[in-house]
Amino acid sequence: MGPVERLRRLEGIIPPTVTPLSRDGSVDRKGLQRVLEFQLAQGVAGIFLLGSTGEFANLSARQRQEVVEVGVEVVQRRVPVLVGLGGEGTEAAVEFARAVERSGVDGLVSLPPRYYLYQGVEHQVCLEFYLRLLEATELPLFAYNNPRLARTWIPVETLMALAEEERFAGVKESSADFHYFQSLLQVLSGRVAVLQGSERLLLASALMGAQGGVHGLANLLAWPCQNLWQKARQFPLSQEGLEALRREQFRLIAASKLLFDHPSPLAHLKGVMERLGLCQRWVSSPFPQAQDEAIERACQGLQRLGFWEDLLRWAEEARGKAG
Amino acid sequence: MGPVERLRRLEGIIPPTVTPLSRDGSVDRKGLQRVLEFQLAQGVAGIFLLGSTGEFANLSARQRQEVVEVGVEVVQRRVPVLVGLGGEGTEAAVEFARAVERSGVDGLVSLPPRYYLYQGVEHQVCLEFYLRLLEATELPLFAYNNPRLARTWIPVETLMALAEEERFAGVKESSADFHYFQSLLQVLSGRVAVLQGSERLLLASALMGAQGGVHGLANLLAWPCQNLWQKARQFPLSQEGLEALRREQFRLIAASKLLFDHPSPLAHLKGVMERLGLCQRWVSSPFPQAQDEAIERACQGLQRLGFWEDLLRWAEEARGKAG
Amino acid sequence: MGPVERLRRLEGIIPPTVTPLSRDGSVDRKGLQRVLEFQLAQGVAGIFLLGSTGEFANLSARQRQEVVEVGVEVVQRRVPVLVGLGGEGTEAAVEFARAVERSGVDGLVSLPPRYYLYQGVEHQVCLEFYLRLLEATELPLFAYNNPRLARTWIPVETLMALAEEERFAGVKESSADFHYFQSLLQVLSGRVAVLQGSERLLLASALMGAQGGVHGLANLLAWPCQNLWQKARQFPLSQEGLEALRREQFRLIAASKLLFDHPSPLAHLKGVMERLGLCQRWVSSPFPQAQDEAIERACQGLQRLGFWEDLLRWAEEARGKAG
Amino acid sequence: MGPVERLRRLEGIIPPTVTPLSRDGSVDRKGLQRVLEFQLAQGVAGIFLLGSTGEFANLSARQRQEVVEVGVEVVQRRVPVLVGLGGEGTEAAVEFARAVERSGVDGLVSLPPRYYLYQGVEHQVCLEFYLRLLEATELPLFAYNNPRLARTWIPVETLMALAEEERFAGVKESSADFHYFQSLLQVLSGRVAVLQGSERLLLASALMGAQGGVHGLANLLAWPCQNLWQKARQFPLSQEGLEALRREQFRLIAASKLLFDHPSPLAHLKGVMERLGLCQRWVSSPFPQAQDEAIERACQGLQRLGFWEDLLRWAEEARGKAG
Repeated sequence: MGPVERLRRLEGIIPPTVTPLSRDGSVDRKGLQRVLEFQLAQGVAGIFLLGSTGEFANLSARQRQEVVEVGVEVVQRRVPVLVGLGGEGTEAAVEFARAVERSGVDGLVSLPPRYYLYQGVEHQVCLEFYLRLLEATELPLFAYNNPRLARTWIPVETLMALAEEERFAGVKESSADFHYFQSLLQVLSGRVAVLQGSERLLLASALMGAQGGVHGLANLLAWPCQNLWQKARQFPLSQEGLEALRREQFRLIAASKLLFDHPSPLAHLKGVMERLGLCQRWVSSPFPQAQDEAIERACQGLQRLGFWEDLLRWAEEARGKAG
Repeated sequence: MGPVERLRRLEGIIPPTVTPLSRDGSVDRKGLQRVLEFQLAQGVAGIFLLGSTGEFANLSARQRQEVVEVGVEVVQRRVPVLVGLGGEGTEAAVEFARAVERSGVDGLVSLPPRYYLYQGVEHQVCLEFYLRLLEATELPLFAYNNPRLARTWIPVETLMALAEEERFAGVKESSADFHYFQSLLQVLSGRVAVLQGSERLLLASALMGAQGGVHGLANLLAWPCQNLWQKARQFPLSQEGLEALRREQFRLIAASKLLFDHPSPLAHLKGVMERLGLCQRWVSSPFPQAQDEAIERACQGLQRLGFWEDLLRWAEEARGKAG
Repeated sequence: MGPVERLRRLEGIIPPTVTPLSRDGSVDRKGLQRVLEFQLAQGVAGIFLLGSTGEFANLSARQRQEVVEVGVEVVQRRVPVLVGLGGEGTEAAVEFARAVERSGVDGLVSLPPRYYLYQGVEHQVCLEFYLRLLEATELPLFAYNNPRLARTWIPVETLMALAEEERFAGVKESSADFHYFQSLLQVLSGRVAVLQGSERLLLASALMGAQGGVHGLANLLAWPCQNLWQKARQFPLSQEGLEALRREQFRLIAASKLLFDHPSPLAHLKGVMERLGLCQRWVSSPFPQAQDEAIERACQGLQRLGFWEDLLRWAEEARGKAG
Repeated sequence: MGPVERLRRLEGIIPPTVTPLSRDGSVDRKGLQRVLEFQLAQGVAGIFLLGSTGEFANLSARQRQEVVEVGVEVVQRRVPVLVGLGGEGTEAAVEFARAVERSGVDGLVSLPPRYYLYQGVEHQVCLEFYLRLLEATELPLFAYNNPRLARTWIPVETLMALAEEERFAGVKESSADFHYFQSLLQVLSGRVAVLQGSERLLLASALMGAQGGVHGLANLLAWPCQNLWQKARQFPLSQEGLEALRREQFRLIAASKLLFDHPSPLAHLKGVMERLGLCQRWVSSPFPQAQDEAIERACQGLQRLGFWEDLLRWAEEARGKAG
C-alpha cells in the first residue's frame, strides 16, 4: 500500500497539535516534544501540525518551519505527520508546501483560498487552487473545510473532482454542518478519507460512516476520543452499548465546552497543559493569555468529569520519554 | 397515562401536513381529507397541522380554523393531532390557541416570539411567551425551534425550565444544527419529547437518542421515514444492518433534495401529490406555482429512487377511504 | 393634486407612532390621543400607525383595528395617516388592508412577504404581493423595506416596476444600507417618495436627495428631526451651516443610541413618554418592561443633550389639547 | 509639520493601486510603473500599495517586497506612499512592517487581526495588535476596517484609544456601514484622518466631514473621484450645485458596478487597464481571469458613461512618462 493509500485508509483520531511557545513568542521545542509524546502515548492515528489549533495563522514563516522540523524529528515515523497550509493565495501556499516537503512530512492539509470572497466561482477557484498544490509537491494532500474561520465553503463537486486525482487523500471537515458532512460521506466514502473536525460530532459521524476525526480536544483527551471511535465500530451494537457510547460522547462534549467555549480557547487548553507539566501556557499575539483562575476552573472541571487521573499518567509518561 | 405523558412519549414520524388549496386559494377540504388518509395509511405516529410546510404564515385566520376542523374530523383520534401557532406576539398566539382548543385537537406546537430580535433577552422573552401559552389553554404544548425561518433561537435553558412545567410536552427542532440538537437530547431526553425536524438527520438523530421526527418529506414518504426510525432502534445492530440504514438515509436525502432544493419547495411537493390524485397543486400567494416540467422531473426522480410504486398504492388506498 | 400625488410628494418627518397600552395589554386610547397631539404639535408631515415601532407584530387583530380608529379620529385629516400591514402572506395582508380602508386612512405601508425565504424568486414574489395589495383597495400604497426584522430585501427592480403603478406612492427604507438606499434614490426620485427609516442617516439622506424620513426617534423628537430636514434643503449652504447640521445630526444620533441601543428599545421610549405624562410605559408581551432606573437614565441623557425643556413644553401642549 | 501630521491631514483621493502581473505570475514592473504614472497624472493625494485591490492576500513575500520597491522608486516622494499589511497574526505583520520600513515608504496601513474570531475580546486584541505594530517601526500607521473580507470589526473604542498614540495617522473604513462610519467621524474627525473606502459613498462621506477616500475605482477614475471630493468642499453650495454633485456620484456608482459587480472584479479592472496600454490583464491565482467579451463590455460601458476619452488621454501621458 503506497503512502497516499495509507492516508486514504487512515482510521481514528489525529490531534491538531498545539504549538507550544515561550513567553517571548519563540517556539518551545521541548514543550512540543512533550506534547507530541503525550499524544502518541494515547495511541493517536496521526499528528496534524499547524492547524487552526496549532495557531498557524499567528505564526511567522520561520516559526512554522521550526514546528515542522521538531514534529518530524520527534514522531520518527511512528504515525503519519500532516502539516497545515493556511490557504489564502495559491503562490504562498505553493511556496510553503515545497518548503515543508523537504522536511520529510507525510502529507499536507490545506484550507481553501480565502480572504477574497469568490462568490459564485467557488468551484473553479477551489479546483485551481488544489490542483496547483497537487502539482507543486509529491505529497498526499487533504482539503480542510472550515468556513467558520476561513469563510469559503469547498463545494462538494470540487471534492468529487479532486477524489479522482492520484495524490488527493481526503478531507477534514470542520463546518459542524451535518448536512454537508453527510453529503461528503455519501460521495467520498470508500474512496478518500472523510474526517470529522468537531469532537462534539464524533459519535454521530462514526455511526454514519466517517473514518476518523481531527479534534482539538484530542490534544488532551486523545485516548477517550480514540476509544469512542473504536467502540462505535464494534459490532453487533447492543442497546446498552449504544447508550453507553452516547453518555461518553456527552462527557466529551462537556470537556469540550469547558475548554473551548471562551473567547481565547487555545489559552485555556495550553493552561491545562502547563498544569500537566507538558508545555508553557503562552499563546501567540494577539490571543489573550489565560488567567490562573480560569485554568484552575478548567482543571477542576476535567477532574469532575473523571479525566484527570488519566491525564496525569499520560503526562508523566510523556515527560519520561521526552526528557 | 394522561394526554401530556402520551405526547411526551410519542415515538416515530409525524408529518407536518400540507394544506391543500383550490385555485382560488380556499382550503380544499376533500384534498386535505385524502392527504391525511394517505399519511395515516403509512402508519404515522401523529399529524401536525399548520406547520411551516402547512403554509401557516400565508393563511388567513379563517383558513387556519378550517384546516383544524377538517383535520380533527378526518383523523378521528386515530393518532394525536397537533396544531401550529405562528409565534410572533403573545396576544395573537394566545387568541389562536384558545380558538384551536375548542376544536378538539391534542396539542399545540409554537414557534417562539419572532419578528422583533430580542437580542440578549431571548431566555426571558421565550419563557414569558411559552408560560403565557401554557396558561391560556389546557392543551399540551410543544416548542418549535426553526431559526432559519423564525430567526429566534430558543435557548436551551428556556427549554430546561419549560420541561418542569406540567403541560410542556417537548420540542420540535428544525435548526439542522446538530450541536444544538445534541444539547437538547442531553438535557431533555427521557423527560419530554425531542423531535428532529430535518429528514436528512433522521438516522443520526435516532441513533443519538431522539424519539421521533417531524419531516416535510413524510408528507409523501411517511412509511420509509417511519421504517428507518424503527430499524434504528432494533438491537443488536450489525455492521451490515447499519450500512443498510445509512443507504436508506441517503436515499431519503436524495428524495428530499429532489423535492425541496428549489425556491418554491412546497409547490413541487403539492405538484407530486396532484399527480397521485391526492390534492391540487396550488400553493398560497405569494409562493410561485409549480410548472408541469418541474413536477414531471420530481415524479421521475421518485421513480428512479424506487419510491413510486408504493406511493401509487398508498394514494389509491387513501382515495378509497376518503372518497 | 390627487391623494396619491400628495403622498408621493410628501416631504419631511413622519413618526412611526408608538401604540400606548394599559397594564393589561389593552390599547390606551387616551394615551394614544396625547401622543398623537404631542407629535402633531411638533409639526410632523404625517402619522404612520402600526409600524415596527408601533409594535404591530405583537398586537391582535382587534388591537390593530382600535389603533387605526383612534388615530383617524384624533388626526382629523390635519396630516395624512398611514397604516402598516405586517407583510407575511398575501391573504392576511389583503384582509387587513380592506378592513383598514373602511376606517378612512390615507395610505397603506406594507412590509414584503416574509417568514418564508423566497431565495432567488424575490422579485416575482414581492411583485405579486404588492400588485395584489394594490388591487385589493383604493388606497395609495408604500413598500417598507426592513430586512433586519423582516429579512426579505425588496429588489430594486420590483420597486421600479411598482413605480409604474397608479397608486404606488413610495418606499420607506429601513435597511440602514446606504448603497441600497442610494440605488433607490437614483431610480425612484422625482417619481415616488423615497423615505429614510434610520434617524442616524437623516442628514446624509436629505443631502443625497431623499424626500423625508420615518424615524422612531421622531416619536419624541419630531421637531428636531423635521428642522434638520428643512435646513438641509435650504440653499445656498455655507461651510459653517453644514458643520452646524452635522453637529445636530450627531446630537440626534446620541439621543437615538440612548433610547434604542438596548434589548427592549420600545420600553425605554415609552418609559420616557410616561415621564412626560403622555402615556403609560407598558409594552406588549413578550417585550421586557422598562425598569425605573433605565427610564431615569434615558431622561437624564435627554436633558444632558439639551432636549428636555422642549419635550416638557410639547407634552404640556399635547395634554392640554387631548384632555 | 512632521510626517505623521502630514498624513493625518491628508485630503482627497488615494488609489489602492493594483499589482500588475505577468502571465507567469511575476510582478510586471513596467506595468506597475505605468499604472502609477497614470494615477499620478490624475492628481491623487497619495498611493496605497498592497491593499485588497492590490491582491496582497494572494502574493508571496517576495512579490510584496518587489511591489513596494518599484512603488517607492516610481513615486519619488511626489505623494505619500502607503503600504498594506495583511493583518492576521502580530508576528508576521511586525516582520513585514520592518521589511517595508527599510524601503522608504511613508506609512503603513493594517487590517486588524483576522482568521481567528476573537468574539467578545475584539478591543483587547485589536489594541494589542496595533500597539505592537506602532512599536515595531518608526512609521505612521493607519488602521483598515474591512469586515466584509477580514471579518473582524475594529471597535470604535479601539480607534479612540489609538488616536492618542503619537504615530497613529487614521483609519481607512471599508465596511460600507454608514452608521459605523459616522461614529468614526464623530469621535476622530480633526484628530486623525478618517478615509472612506467605498467610492459609492464618496459624496455622502465628504458632505458628512470625511477627509478623503481610498477607492478601488480611483485606479482608473482618480480624477473624477478627486474632483467630486473637492467640489463637495467648495462653499457656499447651491441647490443646482448639489444636484450636479449627486448626478456625478451616480455616474461613478454606475462605473463602479460595471467594473466590480462580478465574481472576479479585479480581473475586469486590469482587463480595462490592458486596453489602455497600461499593464497586462493577469490576476493572481486563484482569481478567475477576465474574458475578452467581459473586458469589451466594461470598456463600452465606460465610453457610454463618458469617461473613455479622458482615460485614453491619461494613459497616453502615463505611457509617455513611464516609457
